Amino acid sequence: MSKSIFYHAGCPVCVSAEQDIVNLVGAENVEVVHIGEDRSRIAEAEKAGVKSVPALVTPNGNTLHINFGASMEDVKG
Amino acid sequence: MSKSIFYHAGCPVCVSAEQDIVNLVGAENVEVVHIGEDRSRIAEAEKAGVKSVPALVTPNGNTLHINFGASMEDVKG
Repeated sequence: MSKSIFYHAGCPVCVSAEQDIVNLVGAENVEVVHIGEDRSRIAEAEKAGVKSVPALVTPNGNTLHINFGASMEDVKG
Repeated sequence: MSKSIFYHAGCPVCVSAEQDIVNLVGAENVEVVHIGEDRSRIAEAEKAGVKSVPALVTPNGNTLHINFGASMEDVKG
């Protein structure tokens, strides 16, 4: 199985969700990307349909928005 | 590992998220509950902190709201 990508921005909601997702899916199956720090990947996340973080993009390209930490506009602003 | 519980109400967003979660976590690790049909479990879901569906309650009791299908008020109404 190819990896999922978990996009977050370091907010408390993000960190909590990251721990849950890593526990559920397995650390080896998910790439964690901090788009607040690695801003070059914001465009990639938006292209994948990420509208808020934390969000998980599955191997088949679906985007699951998990709880709500921050909108992409907040991350970019 | 004890099971996660995926609560949904049969909406298209719910069905899509269910397929993703089952693929990611494994069908044997998640109980799927349709609270639109099994209304006796609405109270249990709310007690677990479910505010909208679809939502996943993890084995350690955290609630992950995934995308947005319907609020609990909509489900009850």
